[in-house]
Amino acid sequence: MQQETYDLVILGCGPAGLSAAINAIIRNKKVLVLGDEVCSPPLHKAQKIDNYLGLPDMSGAEILERFMQHALRMKVEIRPARAEMINDMDGSFSILSGDDVIEARSIVIATGIPYKPTLPRENEFLGKGLGYCATCDGPLYRDRDVLIISHSEEGEGEADFMAGICRKVYYLPLYRQEPNLDQRVEVLSGKPMEIIGNDFVEGCKLKDGQIINVEGIFVLGGETAPDRLIPGLILEDNHIVVNRQQETNLPGVFAAGDCTGAPYQVAKSVGEGQVAGLNAARYASRR
Amino acid sequence: MQQETYDLVILGCGPAGLSAAINAIIRNKKVLVLGDEVCSPPLHKAQKIDNYLGLPDMSGAEILERFMQHALRMKVEIRPARAEMINDMDGSFSILSGDDVIEARSIVIATGIPYKPTLPRENEFLGKGLGYCATCDGPLYRDRDVLIISHSEEGEGEADFMAGICRKVYYLPLYRQEPNLDQRVEVLSGKPMEIIGNDFVEGCKLKDGQIINVEGIFVLGGETAPDRLIPGLILEDNHIVVNRQQETNLPGVFAAGDCTGAPYQVAKSVGEGQVAGLNAARYASRR
Repeated sequence: MQQETYDLVILGCGPAGLSAAINAIIRNKKVLVLGDEVCSPPLHKAQKIDNYLGLPDMSGAEILERFMQHALRMKVEIRPARAEMINDMDGSFSILSGDDVIEARSIVIATGIPYKPTLPRENEFLGKGLGYCATCDGPLYRDRDVLIISHSEEGEGEADFMAGICRKVYYLPLYRQEPNLDQRVEVLSGKPMEIIGNDFVEGCKLKDGQIINVEGIFVLGGETAPDRLIPGLILEDNHIVVNRQQETNLPGVFAAGDCTGAPYQVAKSVGEGQVAGLNAARYASRR
Repeated sequence: MQQETYDLVILGCGPAGLSAAINAIIRNKKVLVLGDEVCSPPLHKAQKIDNYLGLPDMSGAEILERFMQHALRMKVEIRPARAEMINDMDGSFSILSGDDVIEARSIVIATGIPYKPTLPRENEFLGKGLGYCATCDGPLYRDRDVLIISHSEEGEGEADFMAGICRKVYYLPLYRQEPNLDQRVEVLSGKPMEIIGNDFVEGCKLKDGQIINVEGIFVLGGETAPDRLIPGLILEDNHIVVNRQQETNLPGVFAAGDCTGAPYQVAKSVGEGQVAGLNAARYASRR
């Protein structure tokens, strides 16, 4: 079934993402926002925001609610889903999100404060026993032992899948809810501290000193680093490099908000979202 | 009398200026905003603003009122005055405003959409018979004829002063109120169209074809171009060049909002004001 192509797909439903969305909609663009259940968790927890001009003395949750009301009033389409991979198909973009493939003429990245590795030396072991997608790399670990470290319940399905392939699957949840897993999966508790290994992963040390000997470690459910999402995107100090028009180094890809650098502030995000949204709308019009 | 030094002096009381002010005040800085009677005349006239996230469906006047209420609630000091000249005094700034000299550790320029010359070829004749401060250049025109073109009543005092020096003073008001002037000043009406002269000013042609023969023309009460306000400030296409931290080429001088370039939008201005305010506050702390 041929889907309609969106003019803009916006990753993230925090202040930057919603500001980009309303600005593009005013330009009559077809817009899709991919967001989490909670938009901008750090803002949601903020007790008091007093420096977003025009809305004094608000909690983070209140201000997010105002933003969401504004977006819904403007009929912004928001889907509680996550982009897993974005490919540049010679001028348009193909976004993999769960079982869907979404087409877009332009992309606005507004994914918030950038991903911080869960473990030290994570980048060093990436592709050498450490990965972020168990189902993608699963076949490589047939009849071997793996550890899945998961920031959210989303990791449980991947653990169940791996249980059918691997010799042994350990599952270390970094969230509160009790995991509901295939009986073959062994649930651990504690905090992962260190990757053991020289050139390749040999295990993971937990905070209590216990060492889990595995050949594969998957870290799941954390934010996806933008340059893993869109290959070729240039970062600096973990932030997406943009110019004052919020253009990244990739034509048609814009970025706004905390993912572009400090200060991590609401007004900066809303302002950058506006500029990104207007420029992405213009870019899409020219396609 | 020694005045206390302000940490920030902010030029302009539109969205960018007020956003800079509240953000610097949250950082416990001493802030002064120099603004006009109407903050951001273009926004004040806007019928509907629907793209400032969180405050949907507002008129420009309503949104400005909200912004001003927020600023007053944060005890921002706003003075209805204009900066005429800013000098860098080796690390602090000295701002001439009417009869006052104000000292500041940092400057935020938020003066809005940049000055457009009133007359064609204005820049060409600048210093060759054309000027923006009659009282400054007055002595050069002793016993000569001059024309004062004024965008506001402020020009009347300068015309009266010139009447005591010059042979003949013509006064062309570009505002509605009836001017109240020294009897020696001749009031004209109409629209100035063209500067007459080769290397130096010889006169001014009005729309009805009439030519006023003068050796000096002063254009008063328009916005002051930022690089005339602060010598050495780099502009490009009439806008102040800033980086993503809202720093200009001059240390301690920041700029935000429409004066830094398009899009001329509220959210962009508020976001840039925030970044400029926070960075100017940090700069002032280090002095």
